[in-house]
Amino acid sequence: MIQRHILLMDGPDHKGLIYQVTRILFAHNQNIIRNDEYVSPSKYFFMRTEFEGETDIDKLMEVLKSDLPAGLNLRINPKKKKDIVLMVTKEHHCLGELLIRYAFDELDATILAVISNYNTLQPLVGKFGIPFHFISHENRSREEHEEAILRTLDIYRPEYLVLAKYMRVITPNFVDHFPDKIINIHHSFLPAFIGANPYRQAYERGVKIIGATAHFVNNDLDEGPIIAQDVKSVDHRQTASDMATLGRDTEKGVLSKALKLVFNDRVFIHGNRTIIL
Amino acid sequence: MIQRHILLMDGPDHKGLIYQVTRILFAHNQNIIRNDEYVSPSKYFFMRTEFEGETDIDKLMEVLKSDLPAGLNLRINPKKKKDIVLMVTKEHHCLGELLIRYAFDELDATILAVISNYNTLQPLVGKFGIPFHFISHENRSREEHEEAILRTLDIYRPEYLVLAKYMRVITPNFVDHFPDKIINIHHSFLPAFIGANPYRQAYERGVKIIGATAHFVNNDLDEGPIIAQDVKSVDHRQTASDMATLGRDTEKGVLSKALKLVFNDRVFIHGNRTIIL
Amino acid sequence: MIQRHILLMDGPDHKGLIYQVTRILFAHNQNIIRNDEYVSPSKYFFMRTEFEGETDIDKLMEVLKSDLPAGLNLRINPKKKKDIVLMVTKEHHCLGELLIRYAFDELDATILAVISNYNTLQPLVGKFGIPFHFISHENRSREEHEEAILRTLDIYRPEYLVLAKYMRVITPNFVDHFPDKIINIHHSFLPAFIGANPYRQAYERGVKIIGATAHFVNNDLDEGPIIAQDVKSVDHRQTASDMATLGRDTEKGVLSKALKLVFNDRVFIHGNRTIIL
Amino acid sequence: MIQRHILLMDGPDHKGLIYQVTRILFAHNQNIIRNDEYVSPSKYFFMRTEFEGETDIDKLMEVLKSDLPAGLNLRINPKKKKDIVLMVTKEHHCLGELLIRYAFDELDATILAVISNYNTLQPLVGKFGIPFHFISHENRSREEHEEAILRTLDIYRPEYLVLAKYMRVITPNFVDHFPDKIINIHHSFLPAFIGANPYRQAYERGVKIIGATAHFVNNDLDEGPIIAQDVKSVDHRQTASDMATLGRDTEKGVLSKALKLVFNDRVFIHGNRTIIL
Repeated sequence: MIQRHILLMDGPDHKGLIYQVTRILFAHNQNIIRNDEYVSPSKYFFMRTEFEGETDIDKLMEVLKSDLPAGLNLRINPKKKKDIVLMVTKEHHCLGELLIRYAFDELDATILAVISNYNTLQPLVGKFGIPFHFISHENRSREEHEEAILRTLDIYRPEYLVLAKYMRVITPNFVDHFPDKIINIHHSFLPAFIGANPYRQAYERGVKIIGATAHFVNNDLDEGPIIAQDVKSVDHRQTASDMATLGRDTEKGVLSKALKLVFNDRVFIHGNRTIIL
Repeated sequence: MIQRHILLMDGPDHKGLIYQVTRILFAHNQNIIRNDEYVSPSKYFFMRTEFEGETDIDKLMEVLKSDLPAGLNLRINPKKKKDIVLMVTKEHHCLGELLIRYAFDELDATILAVISNYNTLQPLVGKFGIPFHFISHENRSREEHEEAILRTLDIYRPEYLVLAKYMRVITPNFVDHFPDKIINIHHSFLPAFIGANPYRQAYERGVKIIGATAHFVNNDLDEGPIIAQDVKSVDHRQTASDMATLGRDTEKGVLSKALKLVFNDRVFIHGNRTIIL
Repeated sequence: MIQRHILLMDGPDHKGLIYQVTRILFAHNQNIIRNDEYVSPSKYFFMRTEFEGETDIDKLMEVLKSDLPAGLNLRINPKKKKDIVLMVTKEHHCLGELLIRYAFDELDATILAVISNYNTLQPLVGKFGIPFHFISHENRSREEHEEAILRTLDIYRPEYLVLAKYMRVITPNFVDHFPDKIINIHHSFLPAFIGANPYRQAYERGVKIIGATAHFVNNDLDEGPIIAQDVKSVDHRQTASDMATLGRDTEKGVLSKALKLVFNDRVFIHGNRTIIL
Repeated sequence: MIQRHILLMDGPDHKGLIYQVTRILFAHNQNIIRNDEYVSPSKYFFMRTEFEGETDIDKLMEVLKSDLPAGLNLRINPKKKKDIVLMVTKEHHCLGELLIRYAFDELDATILAVISNYNTLQPLVGKFGIPFHFISHENRSREEHEEAILRTLDIYRPEYLVLAKYMRVITPNFVDHFPDKIINIHHSFLPAFIGANPYRQAYERGVKIIGATAHFVNNDLDEGPIIAQDVKSVDHRQTASDMATLGRDTEKGVLSKALKLVFNDRVFIHGNRTIIL
């Protein structure tokens, strides 16, 4: 039967790279459905090729590796839903959005479980028949807490971990278990506000625009590669609480958009930037 | 010396098209700077390839034509500024924007002349040392008027004709002189309003958003392929005149954006749609 | 105990109207929390005054009526959640958004029931413990179907009826039961597309922006006073189905925004326009 | 003859303030054209009242001062164009936008002169017949340079000073000459980038949105009260230079919008925030 795959390739640019890849796919009777590539000003090459046809993917990969210049990163993913686990704290807005999309098969992913350091959102998750793991951080050191979460994640082995308003700092050790596989949604403003009560800070600063940023988590929590951002206009009549409400709507929209891109294998990470093809 | 060129290609999709084109460019020692393509759901193929190197472009074109499947549209343009003529009536906002950009070499085009059916804008154009042709429509039939304009255009032979708020309907005969080479800016709303005083209509309708559309002119004046659109929010406090002011700002921004895309050979026309690579 | 109220007033403008109203509220020991007004270019006056204090509202209303010029529309609403009924067909996106907001007390309204001409969404509504009435239109004339719906609405007597993607045309007779109390969400584009498969039409037209409009329903279904509109950018890569997905996100956001305004008594209807204070 | 005026008032809220003001205007036969007010959560009151009629404004002001509670800031401005001076360095985009608007009487202000620390933009300003003062900072201490500028400003005595991409830091001493009268346009991003080459920084950071902020200048250059902000979306294909181009378009739009608000006396400064009525 015909399976669709996605070839992801990045590395230093070489003359004729597209030519070689398309030649090889062509020779393996693969039909290119969509091909996108980008070469950065610093001559770094990125290509995403969606193709389908009957073939032995392992053999295809072998040929690609042997025929293409060394130093390229090559991956071939079958086109399928990603397995994910959500981590949340007490806020429902991003979680609710993802659950509704999931319930109607619009998420391009399978939510294996939801993990939270509070049980606040258990009733909501329960409505959708998804396992909810309440792993309190109380009376636990950060390391103990993360160990407990990691043990639970071991059960599910998700391809991606989505921090849908998980309000605890996570340690480098935790991040190292999921390199480039953790996605976070961050309220961030023009200018960005760090620390507690950002909407109060934004209100005090009198900003006219608030926004949100979805990004991969590296070891600098709010500083990983940005996947998507959006903003909404505000004015002086909006209180800090109005801004928080509007901010939550922005956050859920941005997170959904970012996840759609990631789950469709459209996002490359390059240094601290993302290339979206 | 090394010249940069842009290959534009579209037609029915074939397996390995990218492969063949890149192979040929490769064989002619051309370095691909940027390559973008798109295949429509109906399997129509579009490719824009920016490349540079020393070669005989005519010979390259011959090879492309002979080696590639029949039925493809192929063009190779040198990467250079386009020669354009602007047509205006009495409104200055789009014209002023384009003149300032031109004065500081930001337009990707050379304004050869400005033609108007009124002399209202002659002083503004004069400031920038560009020929201004006042060709009144008074005491002339539409055909006579267009003939006079065409005679003037014959002097300049522009690659593109930009209707920067030219408020006269143009005839199919006129359009036929510049197939896919006339760009118009059109106020258009949500919903779109036809006919006189559109901002008054928008006000009466109580729309919360106004917008503008830049499009190619075919023989259905406000209905050609859309190149760019943008909108701005309004509320009940804005009068019809406020909306007109805001609308003009939107129009000039949308027209500038559309021209940048067209002048960089990034816009394909396909039926009544544009494909922008 | 102190109750907060909202005075809504509109009519022909008179010198000193604000003065008289504030004087009367002042004399009744009411503290004005927020006062907004607007006078249209045609000298029509609108005022929304939020106030609180201990008083007999009926007496206050009597005084307002007797002291203010004749011909003004006056209403005083207690500041409270509105009772609403939702009508849906098969699409879940707006319904899901409203249910999640309702579940977390963010809707400024109480959802008394959901009525649908299909049972598709019954499971979703069931998760939230809200009565779901499946009233099929099959084997019923339009009049019989609407009669059945009206009988059900009689049980709940909602203050507002929200058509959250209810895809049946409703008759003038039905609308007359809820004058200015029915809110609809309508996909609408730049330009607006009428009839079946609007996103397909938008795709064929090659629009660069799609949008949605929330409006009151009068007897011209997609033509009532507009409450809120929003748009999203699209490009040629988006299929009609991608546009539909993006359109649904836009629809749910616009509907939520419009409902927040209406449920907070901030929307005046004036002819075919809305004044939002 | 009938002159239109604008009353601006702010201070601690008192019961019945609107009532008293409208009563007094009413008693002086003034017709209120438009009245907007806002009371902050911390009970600080702001009101902008546009009115017209025949009266002695000084007498009216006396009555307002004597009848209204102490501690209110009261100003009455005739509704007229503001006199302004622009300060620029080498970038033309904001200047060009303002000159075109000025040339067609759309600026709500009279540009008395343009001052620059370079002569780069003299030709552009010259086209519009506006005095251009080239005051180089070379071979001058910062104090000497500012003294020279202040001497020139003394000739014009502008009501507002617009920094339309004036790229020198100005000293507290300079700012003190124009308290709340200097408006600056600042590139600022999500997150905000400080220091040299902000668009390069934004590119390196891989932001998906860039923006601009127009603000009053207090003694913390990029930190004064924000008047207007806007953003544009970008993606990985945009180079730092593309972002700079798009950023310039955003800057000129935001500055124009902010100036329109300020020149129409619609902006109150309250601490580090603006209230726009």
